[in-house]
Amino acid sequence: MYWYLIGSIAAILTTFGFVPQIIKMHRTKSSRDVSLATLYQFSAGVVLWALYGLHLGDVIIIAANVVSFITIVAAIVLYYHYSRQ
Amino acid sequence: MYWYLIGSIAAILTTFGFVPQIIKMHRTKSSRDVSLATLYQFSAGVVLWALYGLHLGDVIIIAANVVSFITIVAAIVLYYHYSRQ
Repeated sequence: MYWYLIGSIAAILTTFGFVPQIIKMHRTKSSRDVSLATLYQFSAGVVLWALYGLHLGDVIIIAANVVSFITIVAAIVLYYHYSRQ
Repeated sequence: MYWYLIGSIAAILTTFGFVPQIIKMHRTKSSRDVSLATLYQFSAGVVLWALYGLHLGDVIIIAANVVSFITIVAAIVLYYHYSRQ
């Protein structure tokens, strides 16, 4: 239970790690200094982490990385949206 | 061996995920659009992931998150450095 909590908090923090970046891009309407390569590298990474989680049979790792992928895709969409302006 | 490879590639991609962001800040000498909250949230998250990895006894998860922490601290230092300019 204790480790489940540690893993869950870890998962919540990194899964939603790009949410403040999404909010900041939305507020400033700018993505100029944001690294697109970082976003693409993370999106590829979390897909592979999800597969590795499947192998370990660890629900926390799978769920965290699937949700993470969704937030990173949202960040990439916003990046392109604001880089056009 | 196959899963070890998947896990290792996942670890390399996300561990060094902020390296392109560090390079971009260094090139543009600007961190204005970068979210500091994202960097702090990730640094807290990877510390907890490393602890969770210790619990699982998974060397890949431990190593990935320890190195990840170091690169995020480097990104935070650069953020402050360029936000002063």
